[in-house]
Amino acid sequence: MYTSSELHRLVREHRPGWTLAQLFYTDRDIFEVEVERFLGPQWMVAGHVSEIPNHGDYFVFEALGASVIVVRAADGEIHALHNVCRHRGAKICEQPSGRASLLRCRYHGWSYRLDGQIAAWRHMPEHLNKSEHALRRCGVSIFEGLILVSLMPEKAPDPAVMLQHVRPYWSRYELAKTRTAAIRHYRLQGNWKLGIENNLECYHCLPSHPEYTTTNAFVRADEQTSETVVESFAAYRQSWEERMRAAGTLTGRSEMITTGGQPCRAGTWPLAPGKLTGSRDGQGVAPLLGRVGGYDESVTTGCIGFLSYMGAMCDHAVQVNYLPQSVDVTLVVLRWLVRADAVEGRDYDADNLCWLWDETTRQDKSIIELNAAGVGSRGYVPGPYSNLESMTQDFVDRYLKLMSEPA
Amino acid sequence: MYTSSELHRLVREHRPGWTLAQLFYTDRDIFEVEVERFLGPQWMVAGHVSEIPNHGDYFVFEALGASVIVVRAADGEIHALHNVCRHRGAKICEQPSGRASLLRCRYHGWSYRLDGQIAAWRHMPEHLNKSEHALRRCGVSIFEGLILVSLMPEKAPDPAVMLQHVRPYWSRYELAKTRTAAIRHYRLQGNWKLGIENNLECYHCLPSHPEYTTTNAFVRADEQTSETVVESFAAYRQSWEERMRAAGTLTGRSEMITTGGQPCRAGTWPLAPGKLTGSRDGQGVAPLLGRVGGYDESVTTGCIGFLSYMGAMCDHAVQVNYLPQSVDVTLVVLRWLVRADAVEGRDYDADNLCWLWDETTRQDKSIIELNAAGVGSRGYVPGPYSNLESMTQDFVDRYLKLMSEPA
Amino acid sequence: MYTSSELHRLVREHRPGWTLAQLFYTDRDIFEVEVERFLGPQWMVAGHVSEIPNHGDYFVFEALGASVIVVRAADGEIHALHNVCRHRGAKICEQPSGRASLLRCRYHGWSYRLDGQIAAWRHMPEHLNKSEHALRRCGVSIFEGLILVSLMPEKAPDPAVMLQHVRPYWSRYELAKTRTAAIRHYRLQGNWKLGIENNLECYHCLPSHPEYTTTNAFVRADEQTSETVVESFAAYRQSWEERMRAAGTLTGRSEMITTGGQPCRAGTWPLAPGKLTGSRDGQGVAPLLGRVGGYDESVTTGCIGFLSYMGAMCDHAVQVNYLPQSVDVTLVVLRWLVRADAVEGRDYDADNLCWLWDETTRQDKSIIELNAAGVGSRGYVPGPYSNLESMTQDFVDRYLKLMSEPA
Repeated sequence: MYTSSELHRLVREHRPGWTLAQLFYTDRDIFEVEVERFLGPQWMVAGHVSEIPNHGDYFVFEALGASVIVVRAADGEIHALHNVCRHRGAKICEQPSGRASLLRCRYHGWSYRLDGQIAAWRHMPEHLNKSEHALRRCGVSIFEGLILVSLMPEKAPDPAVMLQHVRPYWSRYELAKTRTAAIRHYRLQGNWKLGIENNLECYHCLPSHPEYTTTNAFVRADEQTSETVVESFAAYRQSWEERMRAAGTLTGRSEMITTGGQPCRAGTWPLAPGKLTGSRDGQGVAPLLGRVGGYDESVTTGCIGFLSYMGAMCDHAVQVNYLPQSVDVTLVVLRWLVRADAVEGRDYDADNLCWLWDETTRQDKSIIELNAAGVGSRGYVPGPYSNLESMTQDFVDRYLKLMSEPA
Repeated sequence: MYTSSELHRLVREHRPGWTLAQLFYTDRDIFEVEVERFLGPQWMVAGHVSEIPNHGDYFVFEALGASVIVVRAADGEIHALHNVCRHRGAKICEQPSGRASLLRCRYHGWSYRLDGQIAAWRHMPEHLNKSEHALRRCGVSIFEGLILVSLMPEKAPDPAVMLQHVRPYWSRYELAKTRTAAIRHYRLQGNWKLGIENNLECYHCLPSHPEYTTTNAFVRADEQTSETVVESFAAYRQSWEERMRAAGTLTGRSEMITTGGQPCRAGTWPLAPGKLTGSRDGQGVAPLLGRVGGYDESVTTGCIGFLSYMGAMCDHAVQVNYLPQSVDVTLVVLRWLVRADAVEGRDYDADNLCWLWDETTRQDKSIIELNAAGVGSRGYVPGPYSNLESMTQDFVDRYLKLMSEPA
Repeated sequence: MYTSSELHRLVREHRPGWTLAQLFYTDRDIFEVEVERFLGPQWMVAGHVSEIPNHGDYFVFEALGASVIVVRAADGEIHALHNVCRHRGAKICEQPSGRASLLRCRYHGWSYRLDGQIAAWRHMPEHLNKSEHALRRCGVSIFEGLILVSLMPEKAPDPAVMLQHVRPYWSRYELAKTRTAAIRHYRLQGNWKLGIENNLECYHCLPSHPEYTTTNAFVRADEQTSETVVESFAAYRQSWEERMRAAGTLTGRSEMITTGGQPCRAGTWPLAPGKLTGSRDGQGVAPLLGRVGGYDESVTTGCIGFLSYMGAMCDHAVQVNYLPQSVDVTLVVLRWLVRADAVEGRDYDADNLCWLWDETTRQDKSIIELNAAGVGSRGYVPGPYSNLESMTQDFVDRYLKLMSEPA
C-alpha cells in the first residue's frame, strides 16, 4: 500500500512540463487513491434519457469498480442505484439493459421498487426497518438529456452550478430532444490517464488521424504546415466568426473548475471549409438538430468532469466516456445522438454517422495502447510536452494537485 | 500484507448478525491468514476408499495451494503425501489419478515407496539419511469409507473424537460398503466462504432451487408459505418421527465443534411426503444402502469440518466439498455413492442418480457467482441476515472468532 | 514490498547445499531486487550480427521488463536502444524485426536516427536540446559475432575483460563468420532460476534426456552406470585428449567471475565415441565451421553471464538464453548457427540441425515446469543437492551472496 509519504515524494519529484512518473500509470494502490480522492465523485455521462424512455427501462453502468442500475421510475424520474443487494450483496441486474417492474435479487428474492426502496423481503428480524435497506443511491443529474452519474455525490459539485456556464454553447442543439442512434465500446488496455492525455491534445492528429485532420481546419493551422495554410485558416476563421455572429451563434470558449477538480468546458469552433459535418464527404448525415437553422461549418466541444466529453455538429452529436475499470483497463464508450424523430435508413445511415469517430477512436486505441506498453516498460522515463499539448499538461498539473492534497 | 492490527480492526468493526466486510472476500493476505490459522488443519473429504481399491492406486487431491497424492500401499493402508519431490521440489504425479508401484520423480529419478519412504536415489552425499527425506505426510483418517485429509494434522482434532457423536447417524448406510459412482467438478469464481454461507441456509431454496424444494418438505414449511403447508408438514413430520422411532432409526441432530473450530454435525430429517429419494419422480434410483431395510422418506445430512458435507438418502449418498484454490477461486467437488455391488445400467443410471444435486449445484454456482460479483463491487456494504440464515450467521461468528485469536 | 531485513533473514536461514526457499521462486518483490542488483547489468546474447546484416535492419529484444531495439546504423555500428519514445513514452517498433531508415514513433511522429539521436520533432519548446532526448542506450558489445546487450552497462563488467580468457576456446569456430540458421522460442512457466539450475547440472540427463545422453559420453561415465562404462570413457577421453593436443586444439576449462557476479566460462570436451556432432545418426549436419579442419568428436560449451549459454560442435553452434519476463515467466530462446555460406537444403536441413537441442529443450521445459509447480506448492521445502549438482549449488551460493550484499 502506498503510504502518503511515498506518494508525496512522487508528486514532489515531478518536473513541471514533463509527463508523469511510471508508477502513476501502473500502481494499483495509486489507482485506489485516485478513486477515493477525485475519480469517485466525478460526474460521468452514463447514458441519454432516450435509452430508457419508459417506466421500468434500465441499463447497467459499470465504472471504477462499481455496477450501477440506471432506471426510470413510474413517475418518470431516473434513479442510479448500486447494483448490489442490501441483503448478502448479490448482483441484481445481470443483463446490460432491460425492462422490469421490480428489481428482484435472484439469490434470496428480495425485491426493490424502481426508486430502490424495498418492495418485499421475507423472514427478516422484526426490528429492521425496510426504509434503511434501500439500494444505495448514486448522484444523478440530467443535463440536456444526458444522464450524469456520480458514485460519491457528497464530494461532487452541484451539477447545476458546474454546468451553468456551458449551457449557452449547447442549448441550440436541444440534445434533450435527440436520441441515441448508436453506442460502441472500445476496451483500452491502458491506464485511464493515457486516454485523457490523448483526448486533450491534437499534436497527434496530423500523424495519427487523417480523417479528423481533413474535417477540422485548425489541425494544419496549429501545426503551421505552411504559411498559406495558416493565413487561409485565419481568413476563413474570421469570415466564419462574422457569419456566426450575424446568426447570433455563440463562439469561443468557456471553462470552470469545480469541487474536487472537476473541469467543465465548452466552445464552438469552425470545421474545415466546405465541411458541413463530420462525414466521409463533408455532407450532412442526419436531420439538423434542434434550433440549428442550417449547416454553418461549426462544431461545439466540451467536457463534463475528467471522464466525459461531447462534440456536437449541426446534424449529430458524439459523446465519449473514459470509464476506468482498473489501473490498467479503461472502457471507452461512444454514443451518437441524432434528432429524436430521425429514422434509421430514411434519415440517416448508422455506419455513415459513426464513421469519423469510430475510425478516430480505433486509431486512438491503437496509439494509446502503444503508449501504455512503453510507459510500463523498464526503459520509460518522463519526457517533455510540446507547445501543442498545453491542455494535456494542464490536466497533469491539476491531477498532481489533487493527488497532493490531504486525503 | 495485512498486519494483525488491521485485521483486528476489521474483526472488531463487524456488526453481529450482518454479513462480513468486503476485504474478507477479496484480500489475498487475509486468505493466507485463514489457511495458517484454521483452513490448513481442516479435515477434508479427499475421496472414497472405493476409488483406490488396489495396492498402487492413487489420485491427486488439490486444495489450499497444496497437491497431495492419496495412495493405497501394499499393506492396504492409505497414505496422503505431498506431491512434491524432496530433492528439488518437482511435482511427482502429473495425472489426476493412476496406478504405480513406485512414486517416481521424472526430473532426477528419485523414487519413493507407496508410504512415501525413499526407494532409490543416486549420488547423494553419504551423510544424508534416506529416512529423513520421505515425502511429507498429511493427516489421513478413514470415516465410513471416506478418506479424510488434513494438511496440518498437528493443529487438527483427533478425527475419532471429532466424529464419534455423528457415527450413529451414518452407521445404517454402511458407506464403507459403497463405491463412488460419479464425481463432478464445478469451478466457482468466488471466495470459499460464499460457498459455505450458501450451503448453510435454505432461505435461497424457494427462489433458487425448485427441484430441491419439491424434494424436501421443510423448505415450504420453514417459509410458512401457507398455514396449510405448515400444519400438514407438522402432521407429516410427527407421523414420520413415529415411523422412524418404530423402526429404531435415529432422528434429530447432533453437533460438536472441535480444535481449530472444526464443526462436525449430522442429523436425520424427513423428505417430502411420497419422496423415496432425491430423484426426478421421487422413486428410487439405486439399490438400498447398507442396513436400510426400506424407503422411509428420510435424508441424513452433516458436515466434517468447514469444507466437507454429506447427504445420504436410502439408496445413495452425495458428498460435497468446497476446496479453496485461492482467495477467489473455489473448486466444488461432488461425489455420488451407491452400494458397492450396484452395476451401472442394471441397478442405476448415472444421469438419473446425479440429477438433483447436479441441478442444484449448477444453480448454486450461478447465484454464488452473482454474490461474488456484488460483494467485490465498490457498492457493497454488509447486510442483515434473515431469520432463516441462523447457521450461516453462526458460521460467520465462528469464523471471526478464529480470525481474532492470536496466531 | 520486501524490506531488506526480511530478505536478509531469508538469506541467513538458507542451508548450504540445499535448494532455495519458496519465496525466492515466487515473490514479485524479490524479482525486482534481483533485477536491480544483478540481473539488469547481465550481458545477454540478444542476437547474432548476421540477423541484421544491412544498415537499418533491426530486431526487438525483450527481457527483464524492457523492450530494446537492436539496430545496425549506416556506419555499420550496432546500437541497442530502449524501444520507448522520449516524448510521451510510446513503444516505437511494434514488429519483432524489420528494416527502417528512421525509427519513427507512430503517436506524435518524433523520429530518431539509427543511433538513437532525434532526427525530427515538431513544436517543442525552444529551450529543449534535441541531443538530450535521444533514445536511451543499453550497453552493446560484439563477441565472435554475438550481440551482447546489458540494460545497466554502468553496473556491468567490461566485456573485453570478461571474455578474454574464454576467447581461445571459441576462436577456431569463427562464429563471427556464421549466420543464424534458426531461432526458436520456448515459453517457460517458471522462475528463471529454475531454468539456470537445470542448465547447470546433468544429474537429470540420464532420466530425462535420452538423445543428449547418447551424444555425450560423460553422462554415463559421471553416473558410473557400470565399471566398464567408466573405464572405457577414461580410455576414450585420454586418446581424445592426445588427438586434440596433436592437432593443437585447446581442451579443459576456464572460468572468470566478474563485477556483479557475472560468470564467464568455457571448456572443450569429448562427445561420445563415433559422434561427429549432435545429430540423430552422429554424422555431420552442416559444413565444418571456421578453422575446424575435420570432425574431432568435440564440443565447446560455456556461458556469458548468468543468462546466456553456448555450445559449439565442429559443424554448428547452439546458443541458449533464459530471458526472465516476470517472476514466473521465462522466455527461452535458442539460435542455431551455421557457416555463413551454408545454404539451406543444399548444405544443411534445418530440422535435422535443430533436432538434438529442440528435443532436449522441450524435455527441459516439461521438467522445469513440473519443478515450478512443485516449488510453488504449499508442500515444498528445500531439499539437498546431489554430488552431480555442484555447479547448480555453486550458482545458488553466488546468487545468495549477490542478494545479501548492500543494495
